[in-house]
Amino acid sequence: MSSGFVTSAKNMLENKEYSKNVETKAVNNNKTSSFSDKNKNRGAKGADVKKKYETVIKVKSVIPRRRQDLLKWYGWGYKDSMFVINETTTTFTGSRYLLGGKNLPYAKQWLKEHFDLDISKPRKTPPLPTSFPQSRLPANVKEELQKITLLSTDGMDRLIRAHGQTLHDVYNLRENNFPRIPDAVVWPENHEQVEDIVNCASRHHFVIIPFGGGTSVSGSVTCPANEDRPIVVLDTSDMNSILWLDKEQLLARVQAGIVGQDLEREMRARGFTVGHEPDSYEFSTLGGWVATRASGMKKNTYGNIEDLVVQTKVVTPRGVIEKSCRVPRLSCGPEWEHIVLGSEGCLGVVTEVTLKIRPLPPVVRYGSLVFPDWDSGFYFEREVARQRLQPSSIRLMDNEQFRFGHALKMEQSWGGVLLDGLKRFYITKIKGFDPCKLCLVTLLMEGTAEKVADSEKKMNNIAAQYGGVPGGAKNGEIGYTLTFVIAYVRDLALECDIVAESFETSVSWERALALCRNTKARVRDECDKRRITHYLISCRLTQTYDAGCCIYFYFGFKTVGFSDPVHVYEEIEEAARDEIIANGGSISHHHGVGKLRKKWYTATVSEPGRHLLLAAKKALDPDNIFALGNMAFDQYTPDIVKSKL
Amino acid sequence: MSSGFVTSAKNMLENKEYSKNVETKAVNNNKTSSFSDKNKNRGAKGADVKKKYETVIKVKSVIPRRRQDLLKWYGWGYKDSMFVINETTTTFTGSRYLLGGKNLPYAKQWLKEHFDLDISKPRKTPPLPTSFPQSRLPANVKEELQKITLLSTDGMDRLIRAHGQTLHDVYNLRENNFPRIPDAVVWPENHEQVEDIVNCASRHHFVIIPFGGGTSVSGSVTCPANEDRPIVVLDTSDMNSILWLDKEQLLARVQAGIVGQDLEREMRARGFTVGHEPDSYEFSTLGGWVATRASGMKKNTYGNIEDLVVQTKVVTPRGVIEKSCRVPRLSCGPEWEHIVLGSEGCLGVVTEVTLKIRPLPPVVRYGSLVFPDWDSGFYFEREVARQRLQPSSIRLMDNEQFRFGHALKMEQSWGGVLLDGLKRFYITKIKGFDPCKLCLVTLLMEGTAEKVADSEKKMNNIAAQYGGVPGGAKNGEIGYTLTFVIAYVRDLALECDIVAESFETSVSWERALALCRNTKARVRDECDKRRITHYLISCRLTQTYDAGCCIYFYFGFKTVGFSDPVHVYEEIEEAARDEIIANGGSISHHHGVGKLRKKWYTATVSEPGRHLLLAAKKALDPDNIFALGNMAFDQYTPDIVKSKL
Repeated sequence: MSSGFVTSAKNMLENKEYSKNVETKAVNNNKTSSFSDKNKNRGAKGADVKKKYETVIKVKSVIPRRRQDLLKWYGWGYKDSMFVINETTTTFTGSRYLLGGKNLPYAKQWLKEHFDLDISKPRKTPPLPTSFPQSRLPANVKEELQKITLLSTDGMDRLIRAHGQTLHDVYNLRENNFPRIPDAVVWPENHEQVEDIVNCASRHHFVIIPFGGGTSVSGSVTCPANEDRPIVVLDTSDMNSILWLDKEQLLARVQAGIVGQDLEREMRARGFTVGHEPDSYEFSTLGGWVATRASGMKKNTYGNIEDLVVQTKVVTPRGVIEKSCRVPRLSCGPEWEHIVLGSEGCLGVVTEVTLKIRPLPPVVRYGSLVFPDWDSGFYFEREVARQRLQPSSIRLMDNEQFRFGHALKMEQSWGGVLLDGLKRFYITKIKGFDPCKLCLVTLLMEGTAEKVADSEKKMNNIAAQYGGVPGGAKNGEIGYTLTFVIAYVRDLALECDIVAESFETSVSWERALALCRNTKARVRDECDKRRITHYLISCRLTQTYDAGCCIYFYFGFKTVGFSDPVHVYEEIEEAARDEIIANGGSISHHHGVGKLRKKWYTATVSEPGRHLLLAAKKALDPDNIFALGNMAFDQYTPDIVKSKL
Repeated sequence: MSSGFVTSAKNMLENKEYSKNVETKAVNNNKTSSFSDKNKNRGAKGADVKKKYETVIKVKSVIPRRRQDLLKWYGWGYKDSMFVINETTTTFTGSRYLLGGKNLPYAKQWLKEHFDLDISKPRKTPPLPTSFPQSRLPANVKEELQKITLLSTDGMDRLIRAHGQTLHDVYNLRENNFPRIPDAVVWPENHEQVEDIVNCASRHHFVIIPFGGGTSVSGSVTCPANEDRPIVVLDTSDMNSILWLDKEQLLARVQAGIVGQDLEREMRARGFTVGHEPDSYEFSTLGGWVATRASGMKKNTYGNIEDLVVQTKVVTPRGVIEKSCRVPRLSCGPEWEHIVLGSEGCLGVVTEVTLKIRPLPPVVRYGSLVFPDWDSGFYFEREVARQRLQPSSIRLMDNEQFRFGHALKMEQSWGGVLLDGLKRFYITKIKGFDPCKLCLVTLLMEGTAEKVADSEKKMNNIAAQYGGVPGGAKNGEIGYTLTFVIAYVRDLALECDIVAESFETSVSWERALALCRNTKARVRDECDKRRITHYLISCRLTQTYDAGCCIYFYFGFKTVGFSDPVHVYEEIEEAARDEIIANGGSISHHHGVGKLRKKWYTATVSEPGRHLLLAAKKALDPDNIFALGNMAFDQYTPDIVKSKL
């Protein structure tokens, strides 16, 4: 059997972003924004890739302090990158991604088929908001904060930090319908300034919302609508230095505001990688990963965030939590690091993190395998996990998703796209696969040439047992490219009267197939009940473990005829989550609880778990400074309030 | 270079214990003790190794309910297994271990050299206690408890559950000098009975101490001397069934009282292993591992306890904590599983655990490598960790420990013992190693023949870079045997007026060498200060991680001339721990805090960490039913007490 893999250490798709930025690598922290630069006297040192130990690497972030200069204010990602559809062509703009500037001749047909899209209708781009709620921050508090750090009460600065990236948030943005936005934004540069800000909040009773990349899809950073106190967003983006990098010990101490792509670029420039790549990693931050308990697509090699973190430093209103020793593992009672991980901004601000790093793998290889149907692909992945082969990434797309990927096929290049020419002939005619059933496994293998070759051989053998055939290495690459571009689809969808969102879960192996089947069926039922005729429900298996896997669902429907489509969407997603939970799935694999999934929090962690949550709040933030209200924290009543009763 | 490894899948030293017991494997739970058997009507099913899914495997434990029938009441391990030294011979009794019944001709000389041992002095075996403190358990409470489960107020039953295995505990036992023993022992059989007992405690205000194998070396299960309320030990040993075993999903649900060797024997009889092997695993229990955050010697392959546990079920006075879903990983806020892990009995009783299991590896190979000195052995281990080769176990013994191992050499068999014959000639003459400096690395590799061979080759190559040479496979085996026998040394030592104990830490790689050097130097200084002339301080590196390692210290000294040798020992151990912490080491890698290491608790977890601990107590056990007083829990004042003030 011929191999379905290709070696592409130099030409990883993700590296496009890296290589673009390597030249600009961090010598100092001069922001391109119009804000005064508070770092200029810090004495930044030039990065030296040969040194075994480096201190204070100032990182110039791709994302400027005025995020709105580079990023869309009303949706996902870069301003210059979006799907554009009109009567003659469908394109993806910009040059940041491989799809960039390319014509996508198959997209329109797919949209027509699935959503009965009317191309002739003009697209709705939301108008830039011009008026904003008055800032409620008292002048004396503002003055005090300005002595500590940079502060803004500019309307756009506040608006774009009022939310994350849930459908609800983005819809509110586009409709200019935000019930509450923060009253000010501050940009501390270091741990000490965060301590000062938190002390200030304790004295003046304002609320702090820690804000990293703003990519949360749980509503966790969304301003609580009913908060009467002033709300200050603590934007961590100026805390983005690498404080030290120890190449011998394979550790780095990093300020928590660093953006994923900046961190990875700096590490790669020095021959290392953190290897944490959530789908949001172009924009999300280290501190956000910690607070959310994030998971990356290469977790099999590098671990999830809890495996990467050696030590965290967190400012709470009751002081700084930090282990006194930097050790790989200890037995010192309950592990408070696991309270910080998943705290969702409600207990304090993560300021610094000691992270494991790894030498860059000498070989990076993509691969793909085609299976006749979902079940056979699933059993293949289950067997790979059972044998603990665990390539850096192994994913399974369902047929709907596979065909959607096909719809994004470009006119030129990408010669390897599945089902083209001979391969299509081979798979559908010779092997007899049904094009409306077949599924795709994408693989990413890293390591020595020997290890990667061995892994490839073993996986091809297992695939053969389950009826899988090599699907071409390019399809592996495409799978991973789509990861970053797919997030842009929603903005196009919203312009086309389609609401869409993804949601994920984790589940044990033996219940996973039923969970996928039943959740899709439930969504179809809910759509039928509401007479929704045009919709898509699709899933993929994105992470594997000894004891189970992570499943991602994608759901969108055409909203024509609905006055409150987001509410309808949320009703259906809620029904889907109920179904997921009834099928043994979790409330979330890596997005967290936030405000969106509160309903299931207590049942998941049990009543004593809820007690523990509120007890932790009382111990660390008794006055509820971090009043984000995620999980069950909206049930917390500070003593200060009680005493007024 | 010739290989220093040997394959011995069938003949693992640890398997001696397993194979002895395989014949007696678990058909029902009829205890051999004189207690009435409450399990006889449970309808036990025969174990069937071929079934993919088994339910309720009743396990006949090696350890009877009347532990004192099989185990020493005044020291470590089995009654029939001990070192015996007299004018003519030194032997290890019994037939449970490979040393069993063998003459140890070199031991006496070593003891003479290191401790100036006077063989002519008669050994002190402590007399069986005959009187015990009256049980303070009120008659009505006793009656109520007896309706729930089996109960004993027998003096010996209570005495042997008043303590763990610290030097302090064992010395108190031998001197019949226990300040406080429990007032009763109960043996619940299942989760529901534990709930009933905890409810009963809440109503009648007695204290519960959960008790597994009693192997704690932190004082965690030791009865708090100043507790006025009645104390009931909840012995978990009757909760030792495997509730289900899923061979497809590689998971087992196990009652938390199961003893390590019982669990492993049952799994092996069915072709599986849990792979968790702390040095205590012959006697310690699953629940104890969870409560202590245990680590096993094969953690590189199977993980530490936190990696093995998928789900725990814990009875607290405020209800049962248990995640509602059995998933491999989730993001649902703070991970309360990590509060249970390390709770040291102070928050509730772990009743059931879902554990990962693995198929038995086809090949198990021991190996050893000799290095000219500690530093070169250390750098070898560091490089193996850096390359993530990570054999199941990799340990480094220092020269003192190597020579101690030599002192336990038997007259016959064990042909491969290091420095015998040609190998001694080769290593000391040809390679020029100094016998008073050389160190030994022991290795255990598991997996497919191919994987093990590859691992062996790579490690031999790395060893050569650091001046290491193969030391014979037998020496690898000996290293692992000594693990289980070494715990018996202390009882001999105490009989010879030597107090001895081990203590461990974790440390980052870059500080480990200095930590070992400085801690040994500090112990020597402390001995010099006190004019202790005969002592041993030795260390080994027992576990490796990406970011550091675990170091075990062994310290003993001759007590002649000291009126309170345990106190002197504790002073020196305290100084050693101060030194460890000053050198970046942790309070404990896997033994926990207990009562012995309280002094360093708050500094380790930071003040907000201490707040969290007390907050967790208040949330789950507000009346301090689980008043073991470990970590900072002795600082907890229940509201019920406060209201009396």
